[in-house]
Amino acid sequence: MSHHPEAPPLQVAQWLNTATPISLESLRGRVVVLEAFQMLCPACVSHSLPQARKIRQLFAAKDVAVLGLHSVFEHHDVMTPAALEAFVHEYRLTFPIAIDAPSRGSIPATMRDYQLQGTPTTVLIDRRGRIRMSHFGLIDDIALGAAIGQLVAEDAPTAPTERPSDDSKALQAAAAQCDEQGCRTVAG
Amino acid sequence: MSHHPEAPPLQVAQWLNTATPISLESLRGRVVVLEAFQMLCPACVSHSLPQARKIRQLFAAKDVAVLGLHSVFEHHDVMTPAALEAFVHEYRLTFPIAIDAPSRGSIPATMRDYQLQGTPTTVLIDRRGRIRMSHFGLIDDIALGAAIGQLVAEDAPTAPTERPSDDSKALQAAAAQCDEQGCRTVAG
Amino acid sequence: MSHHPEAPPLQVAQWLNTATPISLESLRGRVVVLEAFQMLCPACVSHSLPQARKIRQLFAAKDVAVLGLHSVFEHHDVMTPAALEAFVHEYRLTFPIAIDAPSRGSIPATMRDYQLQGTPTTVLIDRRGRIRMSHFGLIDDIALGAAIGQLVAEDAPTAPTERPSDDSKALQAAAAQCDEQGCRTVAG
Amino acid sequence: MSHHPEAPPLQVAQWLNTATPISLESLRGRVVVLEAFQMLCPACVSHSLPQARKIRQLFAAKDVAVLGLHSVFEHHDVMTPAALEAFVHEYRLTFPIAIDAPSRGSIPATMRDYQLQGTPTTVLIDRRGRIRMSHFGLIDDIALGAAIGQLVAEDAPTAPTERPSDDSKALQAAAAQCDEQGCRTVAG
Repeated sequence: MSHHPEAPPLQVAQWLNTATPISLESLRGRVVVLEAFQMLCPACVSHSLPQARKIRQLFAAKDVAVLGLHSVFEHHDVMTPAALEAFVHEYRLTFPIAIDAPSRGSIPATMRDYQLQGTPTTVLIDRRGRIRMSHFGLIDDIALGAAIGQLVAEDAPTAPTERPSDDSKALQAAAAQCDEQGCRTVAG
Repeated sequence: MSHHPEAPPLQVAQWLNTATPISLESLRGRVVVLEAFQMLCPACVSHSLPQARKIRQLFAAKDVAVLGLHSVFEHHDVMTPAALEAFVHEYRLTFPIAIDAPSRGSIPATMRDYQLQGTPTTVLIDRRGRIRMSHFGLIDDIALGAAIGQLVAEDAPTAPTERPSDDSKALQAAAAQCDEQGCRTVAG
Repeated sequence: MSHHPEAPPLQVAQWLNTATPISLESLRGRVVVLEAFQMLCPACVSHSLPQARKIRQLFAAKDVAVLGLHSVFEHHDVMTPAALEAFVHEYRLTFPIAIDAPSRGSIPATMRDYQLQGTPTTVLIDRRGRIRMSHFGLIDDIALGAAIGQLVAEDAPTAPTERPSDDSKALQAAAAQCDEQGCRTVAG
Repeated sequence: MSHHPEAPPLQVAQWLNTATPISLESLRGRVVVLEAFQMLCPACVSHSLPQARKIRQLFAAKDVAVLGLHSVFEHHDVMTPAALEAFVHEYRLTFPIAIDAPSRGSIPATMRDYQLQGTPTTVLIDRRGRIRMSHFGLIDDIALGAAIGQLVAEDAPTAPTERPSDDSKALQAAAAQCDEQGCRTVAG
């Protein structure tokens, strides 16, 4: 028995960075990092979108999917799809981004269904499609990494205790980022 | 059958920040973050020790233990236990720190047994006492958080899929760090 | 005899954050920091505009004027005045911002007259109205502060060597930012 | 008539990074940045010493001299000259560093004569040998750059308004640091 609500379907007016629409159902078996943002939200630009970009790099695509969700609830006239496209181009965002579907009122449909308080909000959906975290505001990198890492380890296709450590993309990525500023022993 | 080597015992000349010596065996059931450093190693001071301090804050003590390991392999005459005590005091380090036991040659005993390349090295030991990562140099925060999060989820005393999400110290910590710089909806 | 070209007049389609248009001539006697940017230029958002904001805080208004210059040369359809107004509101920019006047081609008029290579470009104009620096790309904070400080000291209304040190806004500001993380002596 | 006190002579037990002792008198005609620190002072290590290193790079040696001053007032037994030498080696500090001479009590002699409150303290001495700033704690980079820039412009051997702008090391340095992340126009 589970206490975690199933993630509602995404309601999307338009997708960027993907040739075909993406459903959450098609991502079952993977952890989904859903990053709700607005292109004119300073904390989204300085913190959350860079985190999303880094998560995309650090985790294997088979384990973690990263989706942007452009949930505009203010300045609708200037945060248009065309403006978002220019923004995505300039900021070199390459993960798929859903434009949240308009609804009655200023709050778009997915934002309403997920009961998001604002932007940025980072939503973590587990491999079974359940919402495990919905965090409004800034998150520390280590805390966010830990939350994703825990969900990656759950229900993994191969039991994590059985696979060799070098099977982990995160561990490999960490190794690849070593910048040699450390103090190396001569004896090694 | 496992591919992961068991973590060798710590060889310790002296402990700081703990009244009684700590054995790895006594930490079975927890993930151990072992941070090998030297007090005059710039990358240790600027990156690894702050990461260790933050990990101590983010994870529940029942899930993750953080240990420093002062493995001096150069400038032995000035990185003495007294100097380390002053360093630990000034940098407000509160987690237990082991002074690696001298050995023949300049490399201390634990550093030799763990085959560490230098400092900083971050070693992750899983709940069963096995080395799962030994990373020399700097690690990205998200990658380190993910690696720890994965190990926390393994062999957890309570199956992680069964406990409510608010049981997670990391998720709680993330929430507590929200600085409200985000854009909050009026409708909420 | 001077080697420095006089700063051409600003050609402005519209001003934000000021009730009346501002001419460079009206700023004679002050150093002018002119920050050319585009609202969708990542380096402008992460570096140059924060520098402009900080300069506004650190220097006395009688010594230094800070002006933004929105010089759009790409994505004209989405970086409209209305979009800029929303951007300025969300990023809490309070210094006057000139929208560079359209010209033939994609390069706006002031950008063309100043021969700017792109955005961000930081232009420093001395108290006599002459261009002393025109720097495309990122600038180190200390270097930028030094360049402005040198110009502030030139032709100062009161000779700088005669005024008491506490007359300097920059020095005062520095003092006000002391966060007490230093190690204070008991004897003081 | 001047309100600025003359900088007292440095009282030095030992110099590092210089073959011969340095007197403030020998630096007349240059701005002196005197950085008082302790090797175990966290804010010195993370902020003030990196600032001193950057100042050394940004300004011409004929305009600005950078001196470290190791003023130990606590943990005397471990912040010894030998420990400082190892620290200076590991942190790659290359500017001259004076070890403040012992005095009666725990406060060393230069620290006492300059009435420093603690470490880090950044002291700015003008070209005439007068103390113009003595700042305990952290200073913002732009504010520090501005304060030095103002002093560099005072009493300059060549009047600053006469020399071409490319004569300025700070401006050159700024230009050299451009990382091309800006948005360059095609037309240039």
